[in-house]
Amino acid sequence: MEELIQKGKFAKAAAAKLAAASSDAKRTALLCAATALVAHTNYILEENKKDIDAGRANGMSDGLIDRLLLTPERISSIADGIRQIADLPDPIGEVLSEVKRPNGLSIGQMRVPLGVCGIIYEARPNVTADAAALCIKSGNACILRCGKEAHKSSMAITKVIQDAIFAAGLPKDSVLLVEDTSRESAVALMKLNDYLDVIIPRGGAGLIRTVVQNATVPAIETGTGNCHIYIDQTANLDMAKDIVINAKTSRPSVCNAAEKLLVHKSVAKEALAKILPALTQKGVTLIGDDQTCRIYPYPDVIPATDDDWGTEYLDLKIGVKVVDSIDDAISHINKYNSGHSEAIITDSYENSQKFLAEVDAAAVYVNASTRFTDGFEFGFGAEIGISTQKLHARGPMGLNALTTTKYIIRGNGQTR
Amino acid sequence: MEELIQKGKFAKAAAAKLAAASSDAKRTALLCAATALVAHTNYILEENKKDIDAGRANGMSDGLIDRLLLTPERISSIADGIRQIADLPDPIGEVLSEVKRPNGLSIGQMRVPLGVCGIIYEARPNVTADAAALCIKSGNACILRCGKEAHKSSMAITKVIQDAIFAAGLPKDSVLLVEDTSRESAVALMKLNDYLDVIIPRGGAGLIRTVVQNATVPAIETGTGNCHIYIDQTANLDMAKDIVINAKTSRPSVCNAAEKLLVHKSVAKEALAKILPALTQKGVTLIGDDQTCRIYPYPDVIPATDDDWGTEYLDLKIGVKVVDSIDDAISHINKYNSGHSEAIITDSYENSQKFLAEVDAAAVYVNASTRFTDGFEFGFGAEIGISTQKLHARGPMGLNALTTTKYIIRGNGQTR
Repeated sequence: MEELIQKGKFAKAAAAKLAAASSDAKRTALLCAATALVAHTNYILEENKKDIDAGRANGMSDGLIDRLLLTPERISSIADGIRQIADLPDPIGEVLSEVKRPNGLSIGQMRVPLGVCGIIYEARPNVTADAAALCIKSGNACILRCGKEAHKSSMAITKVIQDAIFAAGLPKDSVLLVEDTSRESAVALMKLNDYLDVIIPRGGAGLIRTVVQNATVPAIETGTGNCHIYIDQTANLDMAKDIVINAKTSRPSVCNAAEKLLVHKSVAKEALAKILPALTQKGVTLIGDDQTCRIYPYPDVIPATDDDWGTEYLDLKIGVKVVDSIDDAISHINKYNSGHSEAIITDSYENSQKFLAEVDAAAVYVNASTRFTDGFEFGFGAEIGISTQKLHARGPMGLNALTTTKYIIRGNGQTR
Repeated sequence: MEELIQKGKFAKAAAAKLAAASSDAKRTALLCAATALVAHTNYILEENKKDIDAGRANGMSDGLIDRLLLTPERISSIADGIRQIADLPDPIGEVLSEVKRPNGLSIGQMRVPLGVCGIIYEARPNVTADAAALCIKSGNACILRCGKEAHKSSMAITKVIQDAIFAAGLPKDSVLLVEDTSRESAVALMKLNDYLDVIIPRGGAGLIRTVVQNATVPAIETGTGNCHIYIDQTANLDMAKDIVINAKTSRPSVCNAAEKLLVHKSVAKEALAKILPALTQKGVTLIGDDQTCRIYPYPDVIPATDDDWGTEYLDLKIGVKVVDSIDDAISHINKYNSGHSEAIITDSYENSQKFLAEVDAAAVYVNASTRFTDGFEFGFGAEIGISTQKLHARGPMGLNALTTTKYIIRGNGQTR
């Protein structure tokens, strides 16, 4: 695809310059970009209106229209996000280790940018600014590819950022947006191995699956969260109730929301009596296994099908299952989870240790809500996404996830 | 593919047990495996003879037969390799960081095994033992898939290791060898996402390319090395000569051998006069650009084609090019290199810094041979391979490259 090869070349040239840019230059360029976005609010809103009008004409749902919609307040908040990224410490140039070998060679491992990042996302114009800022801060060029419904808004944001960083001395091609919004261009981007060092999908399960299945560029799988909370027989049930309500209902559409509740059989009656009515009161639909349905028959609880246990609802819905033991809970979780966040509520030291050791997920909690799996909550000051794979980065990804290392070896004539 | 799904299930079950195995258990199992391999030398040699006979019957070259051949000495050296791995520090369980957040949550990042590693290699039976030992030491189960020419030898080694580690208390299924040696089984293994956490090719450029193009399991690209040595205008030419001779001729078939020589025009005559005859004397074929050929016409130097600059010869052959400046050298390297190892020979501080900063490769050297890019030379005590990609691991990979991390979060009722 001609456009992608061209953009790949431009981005690679820009990446070489960005890698050498000083921390000050990157920070200043981002602050300028934030100011420029606010200054060009009218232009961005005009372009956004075209996307919104087209979306309405095509019968887009209110929810999707809202995700697409920009307002002066939202643009100002996007700018604030960029300023926050600008003020983070620069990850580049840090020497992670340096050893002197017996032969006199000095071997240092230095943090460097990845190079060119491909980022594929859906109809969210704000991701354009956020992804661009994270890449610039970490010294990477990026090729962005957004959903076609948000293309005019994203292009406006891209142009404003390009001009601002160029005026501040960074290459304009540091941030490029793919103009071809066909499905083919997305797949071609995933295979642009000659120019991309990584491809990151930011969006729903369908997008992520497409990238995993099609990408030949190394990819980072993000974001699917079929998260469980297990209430152990020694749990403080008031704490359990607070945590379940928080994890399920505080923001049901996000990946760190709880989707399943497992309860030890010896406390099932009491725990469910405390928690299920509270969930119902919050509007949560309950899906239960046989034992749960025996305690709370239909229509209070809807019988679960096999598909339920592996499903991420992203909705006010929760699957409830009574388990015989902590071992049952752990093996159920390790069978059905998506490698995101899992929690145990317990007062047993032994069971807390067992759960932490044996559950296979990016983040494993004792007595806390799964909702904390988040780059900001973890103190990273930024979040590229939450990796649910095991290579490169696992869990919330801060700026370091957009870096790699390079060995710097200094000698005085050593041969082997 | 039924066999792979079955093996995937077995390996996943074994991985859960291996992840919880103590350092002592893993060390003891490996020492037992080493002893068992030596004890079963006759059995392994019998099976190896079948591979060798088949290879000879199929007209396999002497070089490939030698790679395939096992002898009592080679088996003993394989066992020594396993003992060395056994005695390395256990990477698992190390806490890389632990922070207390303002809300009281304690967030620790702990090193854990990847899970199940797929390793695809060619007709080298020794890789069977080495890969199995590295995986066991790092708490991973592995599914191995070797070239069909070495299948009987590899199966014999696998069986001996399985029995030995089982007798020592680890699951037999920690190490599994794919029995189907068809090309289809290799491709199916690369797509076994439900069971594999990573796939690592260990072999030549063709194998690596096949994995990169076909794998949907996260892969680590290893081993291609189109390595350059650049002789700067201020280089000590005696040092340059020693380094070039070492990097090109000490082991021309390996990925850290030099494949290209770049020389600054102002020292080209003198440098080439010193180095090229010494290379010729070692049996090295010289391929040169126009300027080199003007100084040493055919048949001393064979004119290079465009293809030469991107080719990894893995042979007693070197491409020689005269460059106008260090910038020319760096841009040539960044255009043609494979991201492996690059060296500058210089007495200029400024140019050494420039080269280290601007060359994009896993290992960048000043005044030393590229041959040092190696897990043992770097002090890792082991080597899984040399990563030429930027995600997860870059450069020589020690045991840590077979691990990931898990966030362990301890709270007392926190909600968000």
